Amino acid sequence: MSAEDKICDNIFKYIESNKNLWIERLREAVAIPSVSATAEHRQDVFKMIEWTEKMMTKLGISCKQIENSTQTLPDGTTIPLPPVLFGTLGNDKNKKTLLIYGHLDVQPANFDDGWNTEPFKLTEIDGKLFGRGSTDDKGPVLGWLNVIESLQKLGIEIPINLKFCFEGMEESGSLGLDTILNKYKKEFLGDVDFTCISDNYWLGKEKPCITYGLRGICSYQVEVTSPKQDLHSGTYGGAIHEPMIDLCWILSQLTDNNGNILINGLDKMVAELTKEESEVDNSTQLIVQLIGLYDKITSFDMEAFQKDIGVGKLTSTNPKEILMRRWRQPSLSVHGIEGAFYGKGTKTVIPAKVIGKFSIRLVPDMFPAEVDKVVVAHLTKIFAERNTANKIRVIPSGGALAWLGDFRHAHYKAGANAVKKVYGVEPDFTREGGSIPVTLTFQNITGKNVMLLPMGRSDDMAHSQNEKLDVYNYINGMKILIGYQIGCVNYGLDKISVRPLT
Amino acid sequence: MSAEDKICDNIFKYIESNKNLWIERLREAVAIPSVSATAEHRQDVFKMIEWTEKMMTKLGISCKQIENSTQTLPDGTTIPLPPVLFGTLGNDKNKKTLLIYGHLDVQPANFDDGWNTEPFKLTEIDGKLFGRGSTDDKGPVLGWLNVIESLQKLGIEIPINLKFCFEGMEESGSLGLDTILNKYKKEFLGDVDFTCISDNYWLGKEKPCITYGLRGICSYQVEVTSPKQDLHSGTYGGAIHEPMIDLCWILSQLTDNNGNILINGLDKMVAELTKEESEVDNSTQLIVQLIGLYDKITSFDMEAFQKDIGVGKLTSTNPKEILMRRWRQPSLSVHGIEGAFYGKGTKTVIPAKVIGKFSIRLVPDMFPAEVDKVVVAHLTKIFAERNTANKIRVIPSGGALAWLGDFRHAHYKAGANAVKKVYGVEPDFTREGGSIPVTLTFQNITGKNVMLLPMGRSDDMAHSQNEKLDVYNYINGMKILIGYQIGCVNYGLDKISVRPLT
Repeated sequence: MSAEDKICDNIFKYIESNKNLWIERLREAVAIPSVSATAEHRQDVFKMIEWTEKMMTKLGISCKQIENSTQTLPDGTTIPLPPVLFGTLGNDKNKKTLLIYGHLDVQPANFDDGWNTEPFKLTEIDGKLFGRGSTDDKGPVLGWLNVIESLQKLGIEIPINLKFCFEGMEESGSLGLDTILNKYKKEFLGDVDFTCISDNYWLGKEKPCITYGLRGICSYQVEVTSPKQDLHSGTYGGAIHEPMIDLCWILSQLTDNNGNILINGLDKMVAELTKEESEVDNSTQLIVQLIGLYDKITSFDMEAFQKDIGVGKLTSTNPKEILMRRWRQPSLSVHGIEGAFYGKGTKTVIPAKVIGKFSIRLVPDMFPAEVDKVVVAHLTKIFAERNTANKIRVIPSGGALAWLGDFRHAHYKAGANAVKKVYGVEPDFTREGGSIPVTLTFQNITGKNVMLLPMGRSDDMAHSQNEKLDVYNYINGMKILIGYQIGCVNYGLDKISVRPLT
Repeated sequence: MSAEDKICDNIFKYIESNKNLWIERLREAVAIPSVSATAEHRQDVFKMIEWTEKMMTKLGISCKQIENSTQTLPDGTTIPLPPVLFGTLGNDKNKKTLLIYGHLDVQPANFDDGWNTEPFKLTEIDGKLFGRGSTDDKGPVLGWLNVIESLQKLGIEIPINLKFCFEGMEESGSLGLDTILNKYKKEFLGDVDFTCISDNYWLGKEKPCITYGLRGICSYQVEVTSPKQDLHSGTYGGAIHEPMIDLCWILSQLTDNNGNILINGLDKMVAELTKEESEVDNSTQLIVQLIGLYDKITSFDMEAFQKDIGVGKLTSTNPKEILMRRWRQPSLSVHGIEGAFYGKGTKTVIPAKVIGKFSIRLVPDMFPAEVDKVVVAHLTKIFAERNTANKIRVIPSGGALAWLGDFRHAHYKAGANAVKKVYGVEPDFTREGGSIPVTLTFQNITGKNVMLLPMGRSDDMAHSQNEKLDVYNYINGMKILIGYQIGCVNYGLDKISVRPLT
C-alpha cells in the first residue's frame, strides 16, 4: 500500500465513522427553505448563506459576502439579491489553487406537490436522504466542508489552496453572479488553477461518472394576440381567429412527432461528430478512457432510464443515439402557455393574448444570437403563411452557450483516479443535457480547466418531487473529494499540455 | 292616444323622474361582490339573495328560499350552494302568469385585471354605469322590481300574475337549479304561461332586439400524459415524446386556420337552413318581421363588431355569414391548458401530464351525447396515427343542448311591440352564440313559450373587464318591461296557435 493510499484509508475511516454527524449537518441545511424562485423565501436564502459562512469561518476559511444587486419582480417590486459567498483557505505559493463552486438555494417544494415526506425535513428511508436540496446542491457543498473538517481533525495538511464560490440564485438564473465574477476576475479568481463543480449527477444509478460537457439554452416566448381583450366563446366563437389555436399550432410545428427540430437552419450549426466520439482508439495512454466515448459508456441502461420515467418508448431504440440526442444534439421543449385558462375544471373564454414558452438546448457550435435570429425568422415566416388575423411576436428570453471541457486535461485524470480509488471502477466520461451557464463563465474567466464531479445519482430527482441523496453517495462522494485533492498534486497538473478544443 | 298609451306614458314619466333612485339601488347591489366561482365569496352570494328577498318582500312579493345542495370544490372541501329564490305576486285566475328568471351572482372581477374603476363600486361615467354585475344580471333583475314598485306607487294594477326565479350560481353552471326546477315543476311552475329572461344583449350598440335562440355547449378535457412526473428539459429533452407538444398538436388539428371544425361527423348534425332564415316572405301578417331573418337584420354592424374587439379581420367578409357562424353553426374554442407552466417569465420543465380544455358550441340538431361520441372517436383516431409514446384521454365534461324558441308566438309580438313603443323601431329578431341552458329547461318544464328580452348592449362587456350598463338602457329597459306586461294581455296569448319547431 502506497503512502498516499494509507493516508486516504485513514481519512476514509474517519469519514465513515462520522456518518451521523454529516447527516445531521445536512438535516440542518435542508431545514432552511432557501428557495430562490420567489420573494417569499428570499430571507431564507440569506439565512442559508449566513449559516454556511459561519461553518466555513469555524474551519478557518476566510469568508467574504460579495454584495449583489437587486431583482425586479414581475409585479414591479424590487427585492435584494443574496450576496455571493467567497471563501479562501490556504495561500501557499507552492500549491495549486482549486476553485470550488456550489449553490445554496433550492427549487420550490411543497408537500402537496406529491412529496412522500416533508420536503424541508430531511428524512432517511432505506439509506436515502429525502429532502429538497439534499442532492441539489446542499449535499455536495457540505461534502467539501466536511472533508476539510476531517483533514483538519486528523492533522493532515490540505495539499492545495482552496477557493470557494457559493451563490444563492442558481435555481433562478444565477442573477448577478456573472457581473460579480467579472468584477473579481483578478482579485479573487486570478490565481485559480482549476475549477471543480459538484452540481450534476451520474448517468445511471450504479456507476460513477465525470462530466465534461453541458448543453446551453435559448429560451423563447411566442406571443399571439389580436383581440383587445378576452372574449366570450359563445358570442365570438366562429367569427374570429382564436389566438390560442394559432399558438398551439405554431408550437406543434417546431418539431416532428419524434422530437426532431423543424426550424430551418439550426441543424447546420451543430458540430459534426468527432473521431473521438465515434471510434475506439487506444493510441493515447493517458486518456484512453476518453476515446470512443459513446461506445465505451457502460453506465447507461436505456431500459432503466425509460422505466424510471415511465414512458412507453423513447425517440430511438439505440442507446448511443439516445445519449447523443441528450448531449450533442439540440432539443426543443414546450414548457407552457401564459394568458390562457390553467385551472382545474372548465372555462369558456377565448383568451386574447397568449404567450407560449419554449426553449432549445444548445450544443457546440450553436451561438445564442444566431439561434435567436433563425428561430425568430422561421416562426415569423410560417405564421405569416397561416394567414390568420392574429399577430405574432417571438421574444428571445435569454441564452447561454453550451460548455465543453477539455477531458484530456490531467485534471480529469485526477478526478477519474479518485473515483476509481473509491468505487473501484473507471468512471464513464459523460456530458449532460442540462445547462449550468456558470461552468463556461469559470472556464472563460480563469482560462483554466473546469470539471464536473457529480456526487448523486441519476434518480435523485433534483428539481422534482422526492429529491434525495443516497447516504452511500454522500459518504463516497466525500471520499472522492479527498482522493481528488491529493491526486491534483500527484498528477502535476501544470505539466500536462492542454490541447484547445474547437 | 290610446288608453294603453296614456297609462304607459304616465309610468314612463315616473320611471324617468326616479332615475337616481334606480341607480342608487343598482349601486347597492353591485357593492355586494356575489361572485359564485370561488368559495371566497360564497357568503356574498347568500347576502345578495337575502338583500333581494328583502326588497321583494317590501313589494308584497311572497318569497321562498329553496334550499340547494352542496358543492365539492377541486380541493375536496364541500361548501353550501346558495338557495334559489322563488317569488309570487298575484294569483288571479283570470290573468296570465309570467315567469321571470334572473341571476344574482356575478363573474369574478379584480381591479388589477385591467378595470378602469373599482369593479364593485358602481361608477357613472358619461351615462354608463361601470361595475361588475351592472348589466349581467343585476340591472335587469332590479329593472323588474323597480317596475313593480312604480306600478304600485302609481296605483296601477299589474295586468298579469308574476312569478320569479332568481338563482345565485348562473355564472358557475347553475349548479342545483335543474334539480330544484324539476322538483317544483307542478307546485311552482305548473301555472306558468310564458317565461321571460333578461340576461343577454343587443346585437349591436344602437338597435334593440329580441332573442329566440341560443347555442348549446359541450366541454372537453384532453389529457396527454406519459412520464411519471415532470422532467428536466435538459436531461430528457430530445429523448422523449413531450406531452405538451403532442397536446398542442392535437388542439391545433381540430379546426382549420379559418375556424372551421375538422372533426369528422359533426357537420352532418347541423340543421339545414330553413326557408324562413334564407328568404324574404311577406305572406304572414303577424310575424312579418321574422321572415328572411338574416336579410332583415339591420343592427349588425360588422365593421363596428370587428373594431370593438380589435381584430384585423373576421372569418368571413359577409355579415350574414358571420351571424350564421355565431348563431347557427357550431364553433370550437380552445380555452387553456392545465398542468403546464402558466406564470410569467421562463421555466424549463417538461410537464408530464397536461390537460387541454376546449369546448364546442352546439346548434340544432346537435345532441351532446352524439357530439361527445364523435369528438372522442376523432381525437383518439388522429392521436393514434401520430405514433407517439404518450397516451391520450378525451374526457367529455358536460353538455347542454341549443335552444330555439318559437318566435312566431304572440309572446314575441308582445315583446316586439313594447320595444317599438319605447325605442320607436321594430326590434331585430336574433339568436345568440352563447348558452343559457336554463332557457331550455324552462321551455321543457313549463311546455310554454320562452323569450329573451335583453336590456343591455353588445358592448356591455359582460364577463370581461369594465362591464357596464348604459343609464339609457337601464331606464328604457324598464319601460319595455311595462309595455311588455300590458302587451301580454292585449295580444291574447292563448288565442295564438303555436306551430312546433323541429
